[in-house]
Amino acid sequence: MSNHTRLHKDTARRVNTRYLSAERVAEIINRKGIAECLAGVASYITQDFLRWTDFDKCPRMANHSEVGVIELMPVSDARSYAFKYVNGHPSNYRYNLPTVMAFGVLADVATGTPELISELTITTAIRTAAMSAVAARALARPGSKTMALIGNGAQSEFQALAFHHLLGIEMFHLFDIDAGATDKLVANLNRLGLGSRRFDSTREAVTGCHIVTTVTADKTNATILTPEMIEPGMHINGVGGDCPGKTELHADVLRLGPVFCEFEPQSRIEGDMQQMPADFPVTEIWQVLSGQATGRTSPEQVTIYDSVGFALEDYSALRYMRDVAAELKMTETISLIPALANPKNLFGFLGGNRGEQTPVPAEVALAA
Amino acid sequence: MSNHTRLHKDTARRVNTRYLSAERVAEIINRKGIAECLAGVASYITQDFLRWTDFDKCPRMANHSEVGVIELMPVSDARSYAFKYVNGHPSNYRYNLPTVMAFGVLADVATGTPELISELTITTAIRTAAMSAVAARALARPGSKTMALIGNGAQSEFQALAFHHLLGIEMFHLFDIDAGATDKLVANLNRLGLGSRRFDSTREAVTGCHIVTTVTADKTNATILTPEMIEPGMHINGVGGDCPGKTELHADVLRLGPVFCEFEPQSRIEGDMQQMPADFPVTEIWQVLSGQATGRTSPEQVTIYDSVGFALEDYSALRYMRDVAAELKMTETISLIPALANPKNLFGFLGGNRGEQTPVPAEVALAA
Repeated sequence: MSNHTRLHKDTARRVNTRYLSAERVAEIINRKGIAECLAGVASYITQDFLRWTDFDKCPRMANHSEVGVIELMPVSDARSYAFKYVNGHPSNYRYNLPTVMAFGVLADVATGTPELISELTITTAIRTAAMSAVAARALARPGSKTMALIGNGAQSEFQALAFHHLLGIEMFHLFDIDAGATDKLVANLNRLGLGSRRFDSTREAVTGCHIVTTVTADKTNATILTPEMIEPGMHINGVGGDCPGKTELHADVLRLGPVFCEFEPQSRIEGDMQQMPADFPVTEIWQVLSGQATGRTSPEQVTIYDSVGFALEDYSALRYMRDVAAELKMTETISLIPALANPKNLFGFLGGNRGEQTPVPAEVALAA
Repeated sequence: MSNHTRLHKDTARRVNTRYLSAERVAEIINRKGIAECLAGVASYITQDFLRWTDFDKCPRMANHSEVGVIELMPVSDARSYAFKYVNGHPSNYRYNLPTVMAFGVLADVATGTPELISELTITTAIRTAAMSAVAARALARPGSKTMALIGNGAQSEFQALAFHHLLGIEMFHLFDIDAGATDKLVANLNRLGLGSRRFDSTREAVTGCHIVTTVTADKTNATILTPEMIEPGMHINGVGGDCPGKTELHADVLRLGPVFCEFEPQSRIEGDMQQMPADFPVTEIWQVLSGQATGRTSPEQVTIYDSVGFALEDYSALRYMRDVAAELKMTETISLIPALANPKNLFGFLGGNRGEQTPVPAEVALAA
């Protein structure tokens, strides 16, 4: 037996991937408080967006079907790699399933080891709302107090909470074509002590609001917002237009003021911007956060944040959940990687060895 | 409360993702027998390659660092979506970790639900070997009995077993620059009752062999095989050149006979073919399997299979493991997706509801 083989004998290294189930993430959020989680994820997102150029970025990889899409969203820096699996199936309510379901992984770039696997359905709702609030803090009029929420589905409470806690929004104007969804949102906001009023149309809901958030689910080229609805000084937080063929803003709305996005190559494919020519001007939000570009220039200006959701936000959210799980001493793991006494002897993991011993017959060991 | 909300009350749909750990997959292989698993995966691969045009395919997405690569490999048809996470870190042996670690997911295209998460480190070794054997059955000389195995690391036993059981190879000629790796392979092949001889160089090992398999790990442009080593009628199964900057065959070896690959757009980037001009002729192996293209045309011809590993093989392997796990009644699950009583009420999953009830206050429910 060579020295190399002997070196590793009986030292199988177990790769335990930390595991955060949907229930565990709910527990984290309940123990920390959702306001603190939103603020924490917003802070991690800001930290990571401020070192934007450190990251290896690409548009997400999407497999489309007639009823939905499944996407993979990887991103990495020199230390960590993250990816998210996420679907978008607007008709999933028929099967009593969420429109968007997600999970993701944080891995070590130095070895490729998956270090954390976590649910990301709830976490995505938090990170999307936190990202919207980070952008709005840089773009909306200071002192904004009212926000329209068009689309009252799974993401809406999180948007309301983020804008309440991170921007001080006190009143939410609600509209959804599904009155039952609005019933649910009203009930949840009441329970949270947040003020809301329901309206019978988008036009009525947005009137007089400082911020308009669109977060609708239909996978169509919709025109939820048309130019005549937009008032001077409004900030538009367009969240639901996030996939080729899925838009919410009339093209002329995008011409009412400067447009900001996450990662331009992805947003031009997926955002409301997909309607615009390739040279339509857009500013990546990290440039505003870092002071390299200007956000709002006057109280009367309309600002538009064309959100699609970018992998770096999931990287930030996974980091946050990992850190809080460690702080709360949550230690569940799953075994995705075989523990090998000798990493060149994968075969030895079979045959009941489980990596605790190499299956080298006695005569070979003695002969070495 | 609307009918819509009422419809879903108290009917939270739990999405349990089936979970196959590394230990469970080892158990599956031990209970079924590795020969049957290799044959089973080869059969699933053949079935799927015969309906090649049904699949939405793309080259894998790679994040490179100085020491390795992490890749995501998605593929889908109208029914199922699969992806694999896999790294390649040749220096991982220093940390007592495998060079290649992997896991993957099978999901339902109709809803985006992740149905299975499985280890894919062991399974990748099986599927890679099964794929090599499927290609060699179509390309190698009938009656081949001897195979050189250049590179005696984690993948080598699986290649030997696949070629023994699926092609009838009886003698393996071994060489690796790490003598300890060859020690390990000799011991494992002895234990399996497979014949082997070790050599002091690639040149000596390949002499007189019907098939030459290269499965080395260095992430460099290596020339493991040079033209003068190649004899008439040899089939070359080039497995280790599978990443930009990672090749095993001298460019002139690729000119000695027809070259076959898995998925041309990916192989031109990652395979030994990356050394060749963009118009260098290559045939996708599915065309040979389906009779649309010719494989070997004479006993004297040299044939070259430039393997890189394609997502569809993982789709096939995940299908196989899922089916066998069901047959063996293995029922472990993990909870990656929150179970929601009302899929538009993700927020209701927080606050201890766990989706079993919607947090609608009594007064709102009564008012509806």
